[in-house]
Amino acid sequence: MTARQPAQPVNGAGVPAGDPRLAKLSLNQRTTKSWSVREAVEGCVRAGISAIGLWREPVAEIGVAAAAKIVTDAGMRVSSLCRGGFLTTAGDEGRAALDDNRRAIDEAAGLGTDCLVMVVGGLPPGSRDLRGARRRMAEAVAELAPYAGERGVRLALEPLHPMYCADRAVLSTLGQALDLAEQFPVEQVGVVVDTFHVWWDPDVWTQIARAGARIASFQVCDFLTPLPADVLLGRGMMGDGHIEFPPFRRAVAQAGYTGDTEVEIFNAQVWATDPGQVLATMKERYIRLVLEG
Amino acid sequence: MTARQPAQPVNGAGVPAGDPRLAKLSLNQRTTKSWSVREAVEGCVRAGISAIGLWREPVAEIGVAAAAKIVTDAGMRVSSLCRGGFLTTAGDEGRAALDDNRRAIDEAAGLGTDCLVMVVGGLPPGSRDLRGARRRMAEAVAELAPYAGERGVRLALEPLHPMYCADRAVLSTLGQALDLAEQFPVEQVGVVVDTFHVWWDPDVWTQIARAGARIASFQVCDFLTPLPADVLLGRGMMGDGHIEFPPFRRAVAQAGYTGDTEVEIFNAQVWATDPGQVLATMKERYIRLVLEG
Repeated sequence: MTARQPAQPVNGAGVPAGDPRLAKLSLNQRTTKSWSVREAVEGCVRAGISAIGLWREPVAEIGVAAAAKIVTDAGMRVSSLCRGGFLTTAGDEGRAALDDNRRAIDEAAGLGTDCLVMVVGGLPPGSRDLRGARRRMAEAVAELAPYAGERGVRLALEPLHPMYCADRAVLSTLGQALDLAEQFPVEQVGVVVDTFHVWWDPDVWTQIARAGARIASFQVCDFLTPLPADVLLGRGMMGDGHIEFPPFRRAVAQAGYTGDTEVEIFNAQVWATDPGQVLATMKERYIRLVLEG
Repeated sequence: MTARQPAQPVNGAGVPAGDPRLAKLSLNQRTTKSWSVREAVEGCVRAGISAIGLWREPVAEIGVAAAAKIVTDAGMRVSSLCRGGFLTTAGDEGRAALDDNRRAIDEAAGLGTDCLVMVVGGLPPGSRDLRGARRRMAEAVAELAPYAGERGVRLALEPLHPMYCADRAVLSTLGQALDLAEQFPVEQVGVVVDTFHVWWDPDVWTQIARAGARIASFQVCDFLTPLPADVLLGRGMMGDGHIEFPPFRRAVAQAGYTGDTEVEIFNAQVWATDPGQVLATMKERYIRLVLEG
């Protein structure tokens, strides 16, 4: 088998909704991009998935209170809200970003999740001052952390794959994220461990162990090659790429993480597939390639 | 100015061939991909560039002895040979790779350069065993290092940007490269500092200082966004992307590096440009964006 061939298809029966192995599986809403909050929640209920990672934009379409009610009425929980961040600019734009992040924190609180995923932002347009961008980002996190903590929300700093350093996140490794997170109380600032972003890092096992109670979210998806023309869409279904997942599952568990495993896939082919089928495949791959082994 | 706009064009006169600021500038042959060894050497002579990084394939077209003579007759030096590596496979393929690397070492010696750039290879097809690939790579380096040292050649381990971890190089950071290199005598195994590959690394300044006499090659080119469809070709002319070069120049100098600065660009637009014009632009950008500031 080459890494580009998809893993084995779902067996005929699929994974039934009541399968206890699904207890900690969460659908990140972006994986089923065409679904509204209501559609995604209903799809999860049908599939037996009890947690969902929401995105601010689809939540905004109906409002936080309505989204929270849909999730709660369905007996589900919100594993995270995506996303705050983009904190590397100065001046008016920087102040506007802080305001927007305070709103994102309020939204997370309103949705009943303690986890706000933070994609911190890349270099400002035209700037090559990476150190300056990192410094401003750290200052913004310092400003937001107490506000988040007071509302029972934790800023979950997400180190992004270094290929996004210029345009999306100057936070590039788990170690760098922890260097920053550790400057704040653990209930205010945590980190995201996303296999796509960190799988290549020779230091990742040390850093996951170090992270311990700082791990606010564990996200999985595969790393595809060749990367698609839009490298943001290189996130594939587990089994379609190069990542071995069980060592990550074991490492975060050993570090003390007991939360959900969120499947977050940005992929044109996945987005073009019937979302119900995506959930069926996701469940099967999750059990076989993440939970087992 | 946004980072996507090219930097200012060459001024009318250009940089004359005798400009002493060109003394340590080297053309990596791949930057002028359409040129043969002879054409590249002649182009360098016209431009006043006295060092060249050669590639094995164009050298093989005329043979090592002929290539060496062309360079020597022109009064130039070979700053590096690209490249050995691809050492992550096992069995027959692994043994064939070792044989090929011994030939590459011999070629480097024959060309009069002590620097063989090593791109160590990615995951073998279908494999997800990153630790295994890294282990095999390290074992192969151990086998090749004495052979190289006996011939006056140093294996220059090149950490590649993590986006190439799956398919090109499981060596992903300068720190990881040094962890391996330091197991061998400094004259046998060194490292490459290539701005494109390491610019994002929050630990890079510490690692460059640590590298010291291990720095076997310093390569520059810019990191472009959006990355092109083939991410291998995201290497741009200095000034066209996001990297601030002078801190790197100063850091390697402070670490004791006194060798050449090689400009290595893989870029469809650069390759479609008249190579003489590419050299003119390269000289101007090198002086203004790497040497100055």
